Amino acid sequence: MTFLFRTSFRKQGLLIPVLNAVRGMSTGSPTPPFTTLSISRPADTITHVEFCRPEKRNAMNKAFWSEMVDCFNQIAEDKECRVVVFSGAGKIFTAGIDLMDMAGDIMQPEGDDTARISWNLRQIIVKYQESFSVIEKCPKPVIVAIHGACIGGGVDLITASDIRLCTQDAWFQVKEVDIGLAADVGTLQRLPKVIGNRSLVNELALTARKMYADEAKSCGLVSRVFPDKETMMAGALEMAGEIASRSPVAVQGTKINLIFSRDHSVQESLNYMATWNMSMLQTHDLMKSAQAAMEKKSLKDIIFSKL
Amino acid sequence: MTFLFRTSFRKQGLLIPVLNAVRGMSTGSPTPPFTTLSISRPADTITHVEFCRPEKRNAMNKAFWSEMVDCFNQIAEDKECRVVVFSGAGKIFTAGIDLMDMAGDIMQPEGDDTARISWNLRQIIVKYQESFSVIEKCPKPVIVAIHGACIGGGVDLITASDIRLCTQDAWFQVKEVDIGLAADVGTLQRLPKVIGNRSLVNELALTARKMYADEAKSCGLVSRVFPDKETMMAGALEMAGEIASRSPVAVQGTKINLIFSRDHSVQESLNYMATWNMSMLQTHDLMKSAQAAMEKKSLKDIIFSKL
Amino acid sequence: MTFLFRTSFRKQGLLIPVLNAVRGMSTGSPTPPFTTLSISRPADTITHVEFCRPEKRNAMNKAFWSEMVDCFNQIAEDKECRVVVFSGAGKIFTAGIDLMDMAGDIMQPEGDDTARISWNLRQIIVKYQESFSVIEKCPKPVIVAIHGACIGGGVDLITASDIRLCTQDAWFQVKEVDIGLAADVGTLQRLPKVIGNRSLVNELALTARKMYADEAKSCGLVSRVFPDKETMMAGALEMAGEIASRSPVAVQGTKINLIFSRDHSVQESLNYMATWNMSMLQTHDLMKSAQAAMEKKSLKDIIFSKL
Amino acid sequence: MTFLFRTSFRKQGLLIPVLNAVRGMSTGSPTPPFTTLSISRPADTITHVEFCRPEKRNAMNKAFWSEMVDCFNQIAEDKECRVVVFSGAGKIFTAGIDLMDMAGDIMQPEGDDTARISWNLRQIIVKYQESFSVIEKCPKPVIVAIHGACIGGGVDLITASDIRLCTQDAWFQVKEVDIGLAADVGTLQRLPKVIGNRSLVNELALTARKMYADEAKSCGLVSRVFPDKETMMAGALEMAGEIASRSPVAVQGTKINLIFSRDHSVQESLNYMATWNMSMLQTHDLMKSAQAAMEKKSLKDIIFSKL
Amino acid sequence: MTFLFRTSFRKQGLLIPVLNAVRGMSTGSPTPPFTTLSISRPADTITHVEFCRPEKRNAMNKAFWSEMVDCFNQIAEDKECRVVVFSGAGKIFTAGIDLMDMAGDIMQPEGDDTARISWNLRQIIVKYQESFSVIEKCPKPVIVAIHGACIGGGVDLITASDIRLCTQDAWFQVKEVDIGLAADVGTLQRLPKVIGNRSLVNELALTARKMYADEAKSCGLVSRVFPDKETMMAGALEMAGEIASRSPVAVQGTKINLIFSRDHSVQESLNYMATWNMSMLQTHDLMKSAQAAMEKKSLKDIIFSKL
Amino acid sequence: MTFLFRTSFRKQGLLIPVLNAVRGMSTGSPTPPFTTLSISRPADTITHVEFCRPEKRNAMNKAFWSEMVDCFNQIAEDKECRVVVFSGAGKIFTAGIDLMDMAGDIMQPEGDDTARISWNLRQIIVKYQESFSVIEKCPKPVIVAIHGACIGGGVDLITASDIRLCTQDAWFQVKEVDIGLAADVGTLQRLPKVIGNRSLVNELALTARKMYADEAKSCGLVSRVFPDKETMMAGALEMAGEIASRSPVAVQGTKINLIFSRDHSVQESLNYMATWNMSMLQTHDLMKSAQAAMEKKSLKDIIFSKL
Repeated sequence: MTFLFRTSFRKQGLLIPVLNAVRGMSTGSPTPPFTTLSISRPADTITHVEFCRPEKRNAMNKAFWSEMVDCFNQIAEDKECRVVVFSGAGKIFTAGIDLMDMAGDIMQPEGDDTARISWNLRQIIVKYQESFSVIEKCPKPVIVAIHGACIGGGVDLITASDIRLCTQDAWFQVKEVDIGLAADVGTLQRLPKVIGNRSLVNELALTARKMYADEAKSCGLVSRVFPDKETMMAGALEMAGEIASRSPVAVQGTKINLIFSRDHSVQESLNYMATWNMSMLQTHDLMKSAQAAMEKKSLKDIIFSKL
Repeated sequence: MTFLFRTSFRKQGLLIPVLNAVRGMSTGSPTPPFTTLSISRPADTITHVEFCRPEKRNAMNKAFWSEMVDCFNQIAEDKECRVVVFSGAGKIFTAGIDLMDMAGDIMQPEGDDTARISWNLRQIIVKYQESFSVIEKCPKPVIVAIHGACIGGGVDLITASDIRLCTQDAWFQVKEVDIGLAADVGTLQRLPKVIGNRSLVNELALTARKMYADEAKSCGLVSRVFPDKETMMAGALEMAGEIASRSPVAVQGTKINLIFSRDHSVQESLNYMATWNMSMLQTHDLMKSAQAAMEKKSLKDIIFSKL
Repeated sequence: MTFLFRTSFRKQGLLIPVLNAVRGMSTGSPTPPFTTLSISRPADTITHVEFCRPEKRNAMNKAFWSEMVDCFNQIAEDKECRVVVFSGAGKIFTAGIDLMDMAGDIMQPEGDDTARISWNLRQIIVKYQESFSVIEKCPKPVIVAIHGACIGGGVDLITASDIRLCTQDAWFQVKEVDIGLAADVGTLQRLPKVIGNRSLVNELALTARKMYADEAKSCGLVSRVFPDKETMMAGALEMAGEIASRSPVAVQGTKINLIFSRDHSVQESLNYMATWNMSMLQTHDLMKSAQAAMEKKSLKDIIFSKL
Repeated sequence: MTFLFRTSFRKQGLLIPVLNAVRGMSTGSPTPPFTTLSISRPADTITHVEFCRPEKRNAMNKAFWSEMVDCFNQIAEDKECRVVVFSGAGKIFTAGIDLMDMAGDIMQPEGDDTARISWNLRQIIVKYQESFSVIEKCPKPVIVAIHGACIGGGVDLITASDIRLCTQDAWFQVKEVDIGLAADVGTLQRLPKVIGNRSLVNELALTARKMYADEAKSCGLVSRVFPDKETMMAGALEMAGEIASRSPVAVQGTKINLIFSRDHSVQESLNYMATWNMSMLQTHDLMKSAQAAMEKKSLKDIIFSKL
Repeated sequence: MTFLFRTSFRKQGLLIPVLNAVRGMSTGSPTPPFTTLSISRPADTITHVEFCRPEKRNAMNKAFWSEMVDCFNQIAEDKECRVVVFSGAGKIFTAGIDLMDMAGDIMQPEGDDTARISWNLRQIIVKYQESFSVIEKCPKPVIVAIHGACIGGGVDLITASDIRLCTQDAWFQVKEVDIGLAADVGTLQRLPKVIGNRSLVNELALTARKMYADEAKSCGLVSRVFPDKETMMAGALEMAGEIASRSPVAVQGTKINLIFSRDHSVQESLNYMATWNMSMLQTHDLMKSAQAAMEKKSLKDIIFSKL
Repeated sequence: MTFLFRTSFRKQGLLIPVLNAVRGMSTGSPTPPFTTLSISRPADTITHVEFCRPEKRNAMNKAFWSEMVDCFNQIAEDKECRVVVFSGAGKIFTAGIDLMDMAGDIMQPEGDDTARISWNLRQIIVKYQESFSVIEKCPKPVIVAIHGACIGGGVDLITASDIRLCTQDAWFQVKEVDIGLAADVGTLQRLPKVIGNRSLVNELALTARKMYADEAKSCGLVSRVFPDKETMMAGALEMAGEIASRSPVAVQGTKINLIFSRDHSVQESLNYMATWNMSMLQTHDLMKSAQAAMEKKSLKDIIFSKL
């Protein structure tokens, strides 16, 4: 099946067939029937997770927050999967938190006194934080493809992903101050480490103004802008295909060490890297890859063991 | 008075009247008569701090260094104030340190031997560092508006601020190597965390070359460039108005946590955030803001308690 | 000799003569006969290190890795030298690691069991990491000038340098995933702290795609792009000349504290800076520089003691 | 067996008061039928976890490692429980890891090459580490009561507990070097932070020699030594009773902040503590406790809400 | 009262030599009339701070918390003073926080909603934390001499001091859980770094049990136990005299670096130390001290410049 | 040779013959002729380093500081050696720094101004720090055996060692304040992490008082006290023999991870440990050791490969 996928890539001038393949494919890995996420397998080694609550503009309801954890924990364990593409179904990527569905949790938390209410609220926040941290803990790279609006919780989600792509019509909004709270599920923690313009981070977080695709590209929030969703999905899958064709030992070790180095000094990170690679360099993938390089063969023709 | 301010905003096509309002307003909060800083209240919730020593090109003399501490400590305590705009009077933002006034401190420090001179110098440096760190410790966001030159100590100052705006004719210079010292009141510590181009940071700090507005915008030192000072001040006040209209619990919590996350790992910062918000989510502002959002009302019509 | 150098700078409209000077000059400091590095002294205070294995596209062989350590340790001790320019001889900057020469070390490491092989591999990785960390530990600023290709190990090398310049035809490739390993001699640790676009860092590291000069400039990997190598070398030497004319106490203190602040919180870094400068402010260079500034004299006419 | 244990308690004159407090409790919380852990409820607010595989000298088999996680996660959620006592059934506390049962996991790990075997081993180690880290993550204090031998994994377990008590006949052994590995589930990480004698820590870990109760007391591994197990269990329950009578907001906040401060600087920890207590001081428990103190009433007569 | 205290010293045969050294000193530094602290000058270079509210068992009232800050900030600036002795007047060292006086602050904090009450409480806690952190920030060593009871806030205070001495009748109690709160002004942060018995720290903090002098000595909370207060005060002053006779550059540099190393890795601390001493080794004190050592002269006969 | 050594151990009631063996043995590994260190090989796997400048009371002269680096770097590379014993020849362990020999370096450092003198002093300090840090960087455990006096630099040395033993007549003195400086080659950084009595650490460092063997034992500076030097050396060698008989993979991994965990949080250290052991658990030593344990064979009869 991987072979067919790659063939269709090569044959077509446009990448649309890949996208069709995505839609046509049956779900690869056995998963529980999620209500907000749709999982498919555009290629053997690629998992496509689609946020699929379009009738509610992909607003993040209670089900979503817990399904994210289950979904990415399963992907982390799935030895077939080497890379993940995440996108949103319908007109926009996501409208952010579903205030109606979650108001009870946040606005009427239980507890006999302020301390106990605080205690319970803290557990809720920590649980919600985990819903996006699982993206980071999953060792497979996650490419997120954003179209239309990406609001509030959406920004938290995408900053926890590894690679961000968007359409020309996409816009981003750190919405939380507008509803009276400091963003607490990742944006304030990850956005400043994702882009290199602190004045802009502060402006976005303090004014809740919208940022459009061009500014998102120039400030480095996304690394590529596509004309429309179809092209973007094709681009995302092509990039996923590139990554999936590399040694999973190399790819997942790269993700893990990139995240480690974000949070540590260079010296600490070099030390961790050396300790990591003292075993990982003993992979057969090194020889296979080196040989392919010398023989000028495509990595897509090399078979790496599962990881 | 807040109401008038907002009305004038809405009525006018251009933002110039806001600026006029700034000039016309009498100082809001009782402050000691500063000699280098002029404090005004363009709106009830906005404090404008103007570096006001234009005859000396806003050079930073001894008075300035200590007045900064008093000024921002007062602002931190001022429950009316929700956001600060900082700018410079006269032709340029600042010429940096006033070597004439401060030469004694730095070049002829007291002490019976090298160790004691060093000890005294260290106390002076630490005291000067505090003059800009107060900006960061003040929980209210500080928008800095730069025109003309921003030299030496000026760069230390603006990197400690939250949002940086400038005029088209602004330029920036990390001047310290030119006078034989490594910048020690903040630039070397904050600039690399403010922009995402380390080669440029090093170039600026090691060659003391000027950087103009366009490069400052493209590298992310400022998030907006305005054609002239008048427009910039109007823009700064409009942005201040936007921030001031949000819940102060949300806004100040956002600033505090953004600064925390700059200096900690993502995991540490998420933990701190959860502990912070376990109480802050219990604010009435959350309900007020959410309700405004649902009723499509402007946040400027909501009254939040002081903080 | 320094005088001549400066004169030639001033006299010529173009900077080409400087470049000629570089080539013509005999090696200034006594060094062992390196086989992969060519050392010259374009000016008394500037050391030019040229990666000189053009017949092998400057591939990094075993000799290179150990010569780098010797070379930069010598430069660190050389009291004449105030700034370093690093470039590559021949058609490209570097093709990265010389797989043929190093295959034995990496692919057939010694050891009686997996643990012992890992132990030995770790020592090799740590040793290779040191080959680039010496650039960072050397207190003199290192300007790296890149033309043509900069592949694999080349990216590790340049991210450990202070200032990055390139030609219009330069391209960069984080190659390691292509040969089955996670980059372990610096790229994953330093690249994210060098540019402010994490999505791009991840994309480059996970797909091994090429990045060309324009994108390298806009993302902040390099701070200047030159039309060709000759112009770049002249520009690099001119910049080196600017840096070399400043107080070495100021310049080297700046480098050391910029690296310190990359790896520490702002508060920690301010504390270290104060402790550093309590003695360094007692340099005569401060008075000399300040006097030159007041007398509007060029720093190039000031003589600073060696450091 | 739990029942018998309680009976023997009741027989003794000295300990009856404790037991009265504990009267007639059947197991409170619904738990799955663990095969290695026996859970009982000596008092409403006290959970007793007994390592119950005496026929195998409480050797840690696969079931144990996963039951620990379930058990302590349940306890963390159990709002009735305020404190935990952990002990071992039979002749000794624990013989450590059950090599026979776990040899497959550790000695014959799966994987197509060294890198993949390493990857799988890492997941196993991380999972085992979690089996003791749950003790630390559970906000309720855990008192561990050790009799007879505490070997290998037993030391990992007890160093993750909050309070350590032992009998006069107890001995401790960091056994791992004897079976050819560096202890990797907590001892090397926690033991040096639990006692203040680094020479001794190193000696124990490098020679695997036994340490007896007296040395354990004098070096601070345990804070109390009891003549025999019966007395120790009574002492442990009495201490548990003392803790359980205090405000759970105070007690659990204390545990959480003590663990935080172990891993952070004093300044960081004070900051976290202030943020923690800004809500927790608003508990009704404060007033209830203060009132009891003023009225000289026992805290055991105060009813605090569940947490 | 200070005078009387000294008189009682003089009467004793044993302690006369100390007192000769201390003879006839009137209070050296001008201080505001504190209401809870009595400041005296037993020797030119020694400041004695006495907690002086014996009629209230030295309970910590509002005045005390702010006077501590003023007092130690003054001492830090006082160039005469080289070492501080802190003790309590009356029957006990301190009964801890004065609940009556402070109840308003803590139990009825102001604020329009939970968030604002929390905000205000946080500021109060931070302010109280500072009352003991000033001891640590003051570069002069602080010897604390404890007799009778040292309860609650008293433990916070003494753990922020450098050297702890006590009388045989002294006892210590981490009291906070008894009044329904987690100790938030230093005990949970500093106690675990002051003694090396974590099980005991947890036991004390979770049960609020008393610890007597012998256990305090054996666990390392105090380094010396004296038979009674008079002997202890003489011992404290003798030790203060020893410290005061050493070079203040050496002594204060030692305190500063000991506190730095508590909160940093060994490598970080060595780096800081080297940067500290690069200037401090240039003190004349080094030569004076070395000469005294060679000439076998007492350091008490050497005159060091003030610091 | 190992066999003979072990035999002599077993045969003799006393351990004196071992000591004789030490003296009689010729140096095992080829080393340069050190002038201050005498290297011998009491057993194949044990290196004995003797500080051998008894006519100068083992004062640390310039030669010593550089020979330490060479010596321990060689030992780190020596695959035969598994454990090191360090002791002093003559009447005392060491009198500390040799002021006469080193006065020039420290008291008359070169440099044209204060900054340059400071720069040079810093390099000297860093170099001296390395002389003891090599002990820590050497992965083989170092047992230090102290008799008589251990003064100044001696305390720096022993706190960098892993296990500390002493004779009944030993005493320790943190001497630096007596000669006018803050100890800068390790004591202030390591001593507080070596013993768990901070009040005592401060007292010792600030008063330079002597501490005798009994206090050293009770505070945890040493883990064993022996009646005299001969017994101590026998005890040290016996302990060395115990360690040397264990798997070097286990032993050296234990040392490396114990040092790592000293400087990191528990969570960080567990992560590093897991990454370390993912390869190290694949050693054959695990099987060999486990088998020996099951067959009740002594580890001394197992042959482990060199590391």
